[in-house]
Amino acid sequence: MDIPTFDDVKIAQKRISPYIHKTPVLSSSFMNELSGAELFFKCENFQKAGAFKVRGASNAVFGLSEEMAVKGVATHSSGNHALSLAYAAARRGIPVTVVMPHTAPEAKKAAVRGYGGTIVECEPSTSSREETFAKVVAESGADFVHPYNDPRVIAGQATCSLELLEQAGNLDAVIAPIGGGGMVSGTCLALSNVAPETKIYAAEPKNADDAYRSFKAGHIIADDAPETVADGLKVPLKDLTWHFVSNHVEDILLATEEEIIEAMKLIWQRMKIVMEPSSAVPLATILKNKNTFAGKRVGVIITGGNVDLSKLPWMNS
Amino acid sequence: MDIPTFDDVKIAQKRISPYIHKTPVLSSSFMNELSGAELFFKCENFQKAGAFKVRGASNAVFGLSEEMAVKGVATHSSGNHALSLAYAAARRGIPVTVVMPHTAPEAKKAAVRGYGGTIVECEPSTSSREETFAKVVAESGADFVHPYNDPRVIAGQATCSLELLEQAGNLDAVIAPIGGGGMVSGTCLALSNVAPETKIYAAEPKNADDAYRSFKAGHIIADDAPETVADGLKVPLKDLTWHFVSNHVEDILLATEEEIIEAMKLIWQRMKIVMEPSSAVPLATILKNKNTFAGKRVGVIITGGNVDLSKLPWMNS
Repeated sequence: MDIPTFDDVKIAQKRISPYIHKTPVLSSSFMNELSGAELFFKCENFQKAGAFKVRGASNAVFGLSEEMAVKGVATHSSGNHALSLAYAAARRGIPVTVVMPHTAPEAKKAAVRGYGGTIVECEPSTSSREETFAKVVAESGADFVHPYNDPRVIAGQATCSLELLEQAGNLDAVIAPIGGGGMVSGTCLALSNVAPETKIYAAEPKNADDAYRSFKAGHIIADDAPETVADGLKVPLKDLTWHFVSNHVEDILLATEEEIIEAMKLIWQRMKIVMEPSSAVPLATILKNKNTFAGKRVGVIITGGNVDLSKLPWMNS
Repeated sequence: MDIPTFDDVKIAQKRISPYIHKTPVLSSSFMNELSGAELFFKCENFQKAGAFKVRGASNAVFGLSEEMAVKGVATHSSGNHALSLAYAAARRGIPVTVVMPHTAPEAKKAAVRGYGGTIVECEPSTSSREETFAKVVAESGADFVHPYNDPRVIAGQATCSLELLEQAGNLDAVIAPIGGGGMVSGTCLALSNVAPETKIYAAEPKNADDAYRSFKAGHIIADDAPETVADGLKVPLKDLTWHFVSNHVEDILLATEEEIIEAMKLIWQRMKIVMEPSSAVPLATILKNKNTFAGKRVGVIITGGNVDLSKLPWMNS
């Protein structure tokens, strides 16, 4: 296992700075009153390509040697990582191939193509995806950039918490949503080095609580296709992210679908920002665990803003 | 006619600063490429009470003598002015009464009550509103703060463009939506004094083009109950706002309902901010008048962010 170090984070920060936004940190007196805590929202919904994922993707793409880079990069994702890798590859001017199930939303496919990416469609099954992806890599020699279980990606995501601390000052806690664990691992990597006293919480949908159960059991438990409105958080932990989560996370907190949707709506209404259901899970868990955060200075990572405006979750609730 | 002066603006700026946000100015490389101009979005959707109206309302409320203030303030509005006046009155700790048709959205009524305001309901007709309002003022002695045809309100709104210039630097043009003309008048008042070379444009829904027709005819034309998705822009010009519009506005540009909705969706999708249909009219007109703005540095005022999330206009289009 190739565990990224804090030096990797410092290199990543310098490497990716020309290609990413230093996103703002917002506060809201309404949210502070409601929660009883002092909340600092790190708004990666305003990030390039609409999500924090562009940090890790840019670190991987711009860290490649010239020789490697000409062969391009590849990944399998139907989410923000696909967009982010396509964005980063376009900035470097190298080929990018994304394997996606043919059932993926047209908007996501269009966005990847908009950055000049090539999409190779597969069946919506793990075996088809793996077979298709292996073929793509064999033919192109492209470098595989995993959405989260990749040291370059984790080092890139770690730059988000470094910025947050610089912008908000000392924090008692930082909370981020957890799916595969890329953002949470980056947060662990950064904070355990520069602010070891800051507690790290992960927020997870109850409907996709594999990280929570892994954390309690002491080993990785992966679920098969959980269903949650927080569609960025369905994937399981892998060895690298498990390393960080198991060593540095204070606790994993859960929220129901209703609580996530309510928190999302509250952020849209009161803070006037567009963000994804996944990004609402931290606030949902803060509001149901007020004693844990009362009186504390808490960083809350709003991970992304890529949402289908014609299918908002409260439309069906 | 009591026309506000630039001295009134400077006094307003100092007076209201403890009660309002200095809202951010956002830019977007996507919007710049799309428009061919360099756009600076002044985000009053992030303002206290969710709209620029809190500037004028705070200026009126905090400018009252102690003697006047104890009797409170009153207005008729079912929109952002009602919320803003209720917010400002709550901050000063004085009574506020808002006359609203009983058909007004429950959310708006709840928001006014949330700030401690009293709502007096009337029938949804001008005669009932005027009769009800006259009774409220006669009984309470409250000071009437008109939503826009009030020199204190216009001086307050003028502080928005002062901030914009300070934040964005010199601008070739500033564009704002026009309904009753409070924001546009404030923009005229500020810029004609500090940046007389900056051209001022007003953006109006084609479906409620009374300001456009007034501007072309040279006198006020008021429409009876126009229908537009930009529900903040249905009201007509009055003598004070007509003074500023007729003297300082370069042109009034129109956009169709479809163009407004398209621009609104584009801003939500690409800039990840929640804003009202009214606030999308400027971008809609910029995109259909590219030659007017090409290569220019243009301030775009995003007037507010109070929108019913369960009734977004693209749901029906």
